[in-house]
Amino acid sequence: MTRIVVIHGPNLNLLGTREPEIYGTTTLAEIDDALQAQAAAAGVELETMQSNSEGEIVTRIQEARGRCDGILMNPGAYAHTSVAIRDAIDAVALPLVEVHLTNVHRREEFRHKLVIAGASVGQVLGFGPASYTLGLDALLGHLGIKTWRKG
Amino acid sequence: MTRIVVIHGPNLNLLGTREPEIYGTTTLAEIDDALQAQAAAAGVELETMQSNSEGEIVTRIQEARGRCDGILMNPGAYAHTSVAIRDAIDAVALPLVEVHLTNVHRREEFRHKLVIAGASVGQVLGFGPASYTLGLDALLGHLGIKTWRKG
Amino acid sequence: MTRIVVIHGPNLNLLGTREPEIYGTTTLAEIDDALQAQAAAAGVELETMQSNSEGEIVTRIQEARGRCDGILMNPGAYAHTSVAIRDAIDAVALPLVEVHLTNVHRREEFRHKLVIAGASVGQVLGFGPASYTLGLDALLGHLGIKTWRKG
Amino acid sequence: MTRIVVIHGPNLNLLGTREPEIYGTTTLAEIDDALQAQAAAAGVELETMQSNSEGEIVTRIQEARGRCDGILMNPGAYAHTSVAIRDAIDAVALPLVEVHLTNVHRREEFRHKLVIAGASVGQVLGFGPASYTLGLDALLGHLGIKTWRKG
Amino acid sequence: MTRIVVIHGPNLNLLGTREPEIYGTTTLAEIDDALQAQAAAAGVELETMQSNSEGEIVTRIQEARGRCDGILMNPGAYAHTSVAIRDAIDAVALPLVEVHLTNVHRREEFRHKLVIAGASVGQVLGFGPASYTLGLDALLGHLGIKTWRKG
Amino acid sequence: MTRIVVIHGPNLNLLGTREPEIYGTTTLAEIDDALQAQAAAAGVELETMQSNSEGEIVTRIQEARGRCDGILMNPGAYAHTSVAIRDAIDAVALPLVEVHLTNVHRREEFRHKLVIAGASVGQVLGFGPASYTLGLDALLGHLGIKTWRKG
Amino acid sequence: MTRIVVIHGPNLNLLGTREPEIYGTTTLAEIDDALQAQAAAAGVELETMQSNSEGEIVTRIQEARGRCDGILMNPGAYAHTSVAIRDAIDAVALPLVEVHLTNVHRREEFRHKLVIAGASVGQVLGFGPASYTLGLDALLGHLGIKTWRKG
Amino acid sequence: MTRIVVIHGPNLNLLGTREPEIYGTTTLAEIDDALQAQAAAAGVELETMQSNSEGEIVTRIQEARGRCDGILMNPGAYAHTSVAIRDAIDAVALPLVEVHLTNVHRREEFRHKLVIAGASVGQVLGFGPASYTLGLDALLGHLGIKTWRKG
Amino acid sequence: MTRIVVIHGPNLNLLGTREPEIYGTTTLAEIDDALQAQAAAAGVELETMQSNSEGEIVTRIQEARGRCDGILMNPGAYAHTSVAIRDAIDAVALPLVEVHLTNVHRREEFRHKLVIAGASVGQVLGFGPASYTLGLDALLGHLGIKTWRKG
Amino acid sequence: MTRIVVIHGPNLNLLGTREPEIYGTTTLAEIDDALQAQAAAAGVELETMQSNSEGEIVTRIQEARGRCDGILMNPGAYAHTSVAIRDAIDAVALPLVEVHLTNVHRREEFRHKLVIAGASVGQVLGFGPASYTLGLDALLGHLGIKTWRKG
Amino acid sequence: MTRIVVIHGPNLNLLGTREPEIYGTTTLAEIDDALQAQAAAAGVELETMQSNSEGEIVTRIQEARGRCDGILMNPGAYAHTSVAIRDAIDAVALPLVEVHLTNVHRREEFRHKLVIAGASVGQVLGFGPASYTLGLDALLGHLGIKTWRKG
Amino acid sequence: MTRIVVIHGPNLNLLGTREPEIYGTTTLAEIDDALQAQAAAAGVELETMQSNSEGEIVTRIQEARGRCDGILMNPGAYAHTSVAIRDAIDAVALPLVEVHLTNVHRREEFRHKLVIAGASVGQVLGFGPASYTLGLDALLGHLGIKTWRKG
Repeated sequence: MTRIVVIHGPNLNLLGTREPEIYGTTTLAEIDDALQAQAAAAGVELETMQSNSEGEIVTRIQEARGRCDGILMNPGAYAHTSVAIRDAIDAVALPLVEVHLTNVHRREEFRHKLVIAGASVGQVLGFGPASYTLGLDALLGHLGIKTWRKG
Repeated sequence: MTRIVVIHGPNLNLLGTREPEIYGTTTLAEIDDALQAQAAAAGVELETMQSNSEGEIVTRIQEARGRCDGILMNPGAYAHTSVAIRDAIDAVALPLVEVHLTNVHRREEFRHKLVIAGASVGQVLGFGPASYTLGLDALLGHLGIKTWRKG
Repeated sequence: MTRIVVIHGPNLNLLGTREPEIYGTTTLAEIDDALQAQAAAAGVELETMQSNSEGEIVTRIQEARGRCDGILMNPGAYAHTSVAIRDAIDAVALPLVEVHLTNVHRREEFRHKLVIAGASVGQVLGFGPASYTLGLDALLGHLGIKTWRKG
Repeated sequence: MTRIVVIHGPNLNLLGTREPEIYGTTTLAEIDDALQAQAAAAGVELETMQSNSEGEIVTRIQEARGRCDGILMNPGAYAHTSVAIRDAIDAVALPLVEVHLTNVHRREEFRHKLVIAGASVGQVLGFGPASYTLGLDALLGHLGIKTWRKG
Repeated sequence: MTRIVVIHGPNLNLLGTREPEIYGTTTLAEIDDALQAQAAAAGVELETMQSNSEGEIVTRIQEARGRCDGILMNPGAYAHTSVAIRDAIDAVALPLVEVHLTNVHRREEFRHKLVIAGASVGQVLGFGPASYTLGLDALLGHLGIKTWRKG
Repeated sequence: MTRIVVIHGPNLNLLGTREPEIYGTTTLAEIDDALQAQAAAAGVELETMQSNSEGEIVTRIQEARGRCDGILMNPGAYAHTSVAIRDAIDAVALPLVEVHLTNVHRREEFRHKLVIAGASVGQVLGFGPASYTLGLDALLGHLGIKTWRKG
Repeated sequence: MTRIVVIHGPNLNLLGTREPEIYGTTTLAEIDDALQAQAAAAGVELETMQSNSEGEIVTRIQEARGRCDGILMNPGAYAHTSVAIRDAIDAVALPLVEVHLTNVHRREEFRHKLVIAGASVGQVLGFGPASYTLGLDALLGHLGIKTWRKG
Repeated sequence: MTRIVVIHGPNLNLLGTREPEIYGTTTLAEIDDALQAQAAAAGVELETMQSNSEGEIVTRIQEARGRCDGILMNPGAYAHTSVAIRDAIDAVALPLVEVHLTNVHRREEFRHKLVIAGASVGQVLGFGPASYTLGLDALLGHLGIKTWRKG
Repeated sequence: MTRIVVIHGPNLNLLGTREPEIYGTTTLAEIDDALQAQAAAAGVELETMQSNSEGEIVTRIQEARGRCDGILMNPGAYAHTSVAIRDAIDAVALPLVEVHLTNVHRREEFRHKLVIAGASVGQVLGFGPASYTLGLDALLGHLGIKTWRKG
Repeated sequence: MTRIVVIHGPNLNLLGTREPEIYGTTTLAEIDDALQAQAAAAGVELETMQSNSEGEIVTRIQEARGRCDGILMNPGAYAHTSVAIRDAIDAVALPLVEVHLTNVHRREEFRHKLVIAGASVGQVLGFGPASYTLGLDALLGHLGIKTWRKG
Repeated sequence: MTRIVVIHGPNLNLLGTREPEIYGTTTLAEIDDALQAQAAAAGVELETMQSNSEGEIVTRIQEARGRCDGILMNPGAYAHTSVAIRDAIDAVALPLVEVHLTNVHRREEFRHKLVIAGASVGQVLGFGPASYTLGLDALLGHLGIKTWRKG
Repeated sequence: MTRIVVIHGPNLNLLGTREPEIYGTTTLAEIDDALQAQAAAAGVELETMQSNSEGEIVTRIQEARGRCDGILMNPGAYAHTSVAIRDAIDAVALPLVEVHLTNVHRREEFRHKLVIAGASVGQVLGFGPASYTLGLDALLGHLGIKTWRKG
């Protein structure tokens, strides 16, 4: 059975209460629930984790090797700074879909630089919680579980 | 009835035959068909156009004002250079979802700069034709026609 | 008889309705009317055009050669990107006055770069519709039709 | 009665004799006379000063607060370097119109950077002495004393 | 029979009259005549077009696919700004020889950046009209119609 | 009788054996032979030299003064670093045509900077050995020995 | 009762022994004692922690939400690199006072960039252990517990 | 007796009325009063001056040599541009504490560059009038008049 | 007895299986074995650790103080980003030899920047597992245990 | 009779006491005496002034016009920042020799940028007080009063 | 029999006497002796040369082709500037190990840029004369003559 | 007896004939004669050499060690590119005075960067042949043979 790991980066545990005018009012638990339902509907197993630590995220990516088929990650602030996470993705050779709640291109200049993106299949940015569900769809499509034709 | 315009930028008319190792073998007509089906299923009208001309794209965006509720655009190369298209989006104040077939962050440095993205709701990059269907989903979600919860 | 061509760049056709908090509520037609009246009072013929297309603007500048004595242009977004329009001005060797409705130096960093300005006689920026009428005055002065002393 | 202060920055006292091939042969006194006549015709009081000192210009701007309604300034070389003058404008919250005799975009690269411009209403550049009279017109228009429609 | 398309970019229609001290006095028609004669002598068909529009040039490049065997282009100002034209060349996978009348490295800094050149076989710059005939020679050589040994 | 000196820069002596997938299999001797034949056919004397030393190339350029009428040079790696060679060209005031076997704009970023090019008449890049023969044609044209019209 | 958390970043546990010529001989325990005394005198509760881990610091900042009223932090090296810590501060919306023992502007260029500072109320840099006690004063002032008037 | 000079840079004389939303409503006289009281309590003489002129500030710093033991300065806008003031501090070899009312790292990019800071003991930024009183405390501490331990 | 600590940074635990075309097939355990043998032969104690966490690496470096005489570290991705690790090295004042399996100068531009290297004695890069054994030799030499003369 | 004005910029009045390890122990009065003797020997009048104010220096340069034949200036810190002084030199069209006591290229990076130098005849840097006397020689030579041949 | 050429770049002939506080007191002859002994022990022939000339180094590299199996080079200052030497290495396709006596990352910024390193197998920097013997070990390992396991 | 070596860099052998509008009409022999006379008058031995080769200049500087007391050098173009020459100066630890005929700050941007200057005592730029004689005076002064007081 296909298995996907969802990784939430730093500060995403505060979702729903953290700067709601930027990040919205949906909580991380609600997002995880939605992703679980979406995975179940697709016949896919899904596990989720959140960490504020770059090193833990690297480790979690490594552990996905052999156990999982793809990674859905919102690297949060590490998207702009972490070469270690980028290398972990390359090291495990698993397809990564990177998602962001906000459109980083509307924000500070330093958020326009995406260090990890070059190691991903693709990115979904700016749609709030929907970035996750769209990202999961994208990953399922990449894995051949879903066709890109809808409707 | 909600109406969406899909705009394909320069060289996308060659899709399916243009550098298939980069852009895949799906044609633009096939993508448009898939988007039409997806729109129909959502009870939304959808029109598509392709142009190699920055000016025509600006004009087409302007014409969407009052007639349409959102724009799905793959600006192609103009993503990296066109302030005029960015301004057109701001001028009509319609929600834009920007999509790209390829993951621009895996390509040449000059493709990492996204001039239009700052005027969009969000972006979907790197999933081939699926970038379009995911992008339409994202736009439908943004317009409140679809919920972000799937499954 | 002296003849002047006024060129409005991309998105200026939306003037009055486009982002009124930035660009004001005066329409392009009202601006053209005011310029016509101003020209008539100075005994000068004036023709106006608007285009969203860089290429059309280049062509219109070329056609001014031999027929016109000066150009008043609001290049809009092309002010920041178009070497082709800059070259067209140099090619026809007609005096250009560049105008902008907004003060570009109060806006995004990328709007501080003025590519065409180096080929102009001068610029008037930031006074809304008055940028045009001041710019026409400046051009008339440059052509020797008006003295710079007022009052 | 509306009152406007005109501030001429460093080296402008030499006008008419300083590098006439760049700055022309009109003297600063002639410019001040023309501005006085223009102000009188508009029913406005106008005072002028010139200084080579950044600090004196800052002080003069401060003194305008409460006594004047707007500032017309050619900051000369300080346009490219003075944060202090920029801050003074913001501090007194008076509308500033910045003028330059020459088109700085035709000159050395370091003259393309305009430090003060971000604190001004707008700028008029490149028309020789006419930059001043156009700038005064622009300021009168901004203050509602003149309409932007001429002719 | 081998067929080559020659594309002249913006403002080249003014050749011979535009800034003759920079671009010389030969007209575009004279250049086209010379290229036709050169092509005929080599037993090659040649068609020429000029456009001021980036979009039209993209389209013309696309149309060359299947009909032509190579492209000789003077992209003019678009050489420094157009990713869309670069992408069109890559999309049709036809050999491009880029030519410039002037030596761009003797001119303004912004003309030293060559955006399209990375998609070309090679470039010929700085020899006036001879850049075209040398460029055609280069293209014929690349296509195997001419040997590189002369004399 | 017109005399031309051909200067081959560092590592070009290895031509034909050095990285043939980049530089091809033609040897420098074959290129020199072809240039000699081409010169003879044009009634021009031609001498060639190769050096790995920046200083020797400077000296050889100096010696051309008074003895030669033009220089054809492939500066190799010195194209990207040598101000001394650039100055030598300016010092002897002889027309230089710069050639490169490869299209430097398809290679590493540091090869896009051409230090010497600003002192040349023009450049021919990317056509393998044909860059030399085209470059000689260009130089002969510049010297008035050949017309730019072929065919 | 007002509660403040003091966070010491990486390597500060070595204080007093680490490069005493740069950082002095006071230990972290002595600083914590001094801060406790200062807090007690102001009727404020204070807790301190030190961590070498970016992720732990993020977590500790998050835990301060709801429990504390302000944060005093010496982010050490993370001051120059950590977007995650900056985001954590914004996420919990607690006032941060950033302190540094050394004057970073006297040190290497890469220490002049302060990534977190933009999310702080203010900074105190360069006074050795006194940076902490001054910083606590600053924070107490910001919280309205102390007036800025002393003496 | 220890003597300290307080120097207020350009536009600080407007304090309390200048952009109160940024700089607060406290006047410079109130700040000077508070500093005098604070100095008196510490048994230290204190003199204050304000100037809009870079040159006057340089001179005032020079005059402090031999007469004073330390300098407390808010250089205002000159913090970002004045090498002359930086050199004056180095020349007199007196300890400088630099203060700013606002957190410059929350403001425009050009305010993040601190030219003078490298010649100071340290800086206090962002606490409004309290920046001054904290800065005086810091200076007293540096001079050994106050211990860094409070409470 | 001399004691050395070997620190392996993020993702090095995957060695041998991670991207073998870049990093080779030797495992980290095999490297550790080789280093142990090499240390034993030199009469030196050696301990090894691997961590994906920047903070843990900082802590491990700190713990080496007083217990160890030198550090051999492959910081992996943190080589390009971690000021905290650099500071830890300076803080403990132990000699560091930095090693990398790959030649970072053949890889992406962002891997050419070495943040930690300035705090090391020296670096060994590009020799696969041999980088470690050479690095240990270098460290033993630096500690005076080995002479640099071999053979 | 030829007359030369010597201008000493900010902080030079402290010479001899200011940072003697950098600037030496000679006082400004001693330098002025030496310059007076040197001028007298050459039959030239010489006046000197020192100012800490950019504006005063501008004014003093202006006053030299018509009264003096050349300027010897040590602009001190203004060498790196003042466009106003540069413009004053251009405005009066008097030959300037710029001198510096220290070799700015051995000092901080920001001292390598010489803003005024482009308006000077030449510069003498790094020889302590001798920079002045050499500079006066250079100016006398430029004015034709001294030949460049000595001995 | 395996043969290795050792190339010492500019100024290395002065070793032992040149800036001993930076480069140590070992002479180049002593280093060459040590390398000869090390080579002999490994059953490898070794020849050494030193040159101050970039061109000679290029030539010497070329001559190694066919005669040698690897190159050990300390390019000295040319490491930071020479594209010609880099190209020579690529041209002969021999493995290069680059060594430096000093840790260039502790020195001036311009020494951090390593132009040749991208054409090497790897680098050894910072260990004084031991950089050479370690580098030879590295090269022997790369050639399969030595195993990377020691002890 | 004090001995000084004068080194002329690339292209200076052409002096007097090379671009006389930039470099003047004095020949290098005339300059050497003047320097010899000047040295003789000061009781100093002087030898001169010119080379177009960076390597030869390095070697000549090395040979000066032990034989000479100072170096007067016009490095020509190598001033902007040669780290090897800079290192040679540091290696021999002889005082260098760098001279240039032209004011490099009035010329192309790439001539504003002075690579060698940081290793010199000082520089004299812009006075034509007088730069040499002034430079020799400067060097004699630095060596204590001449006093800086003239007249």
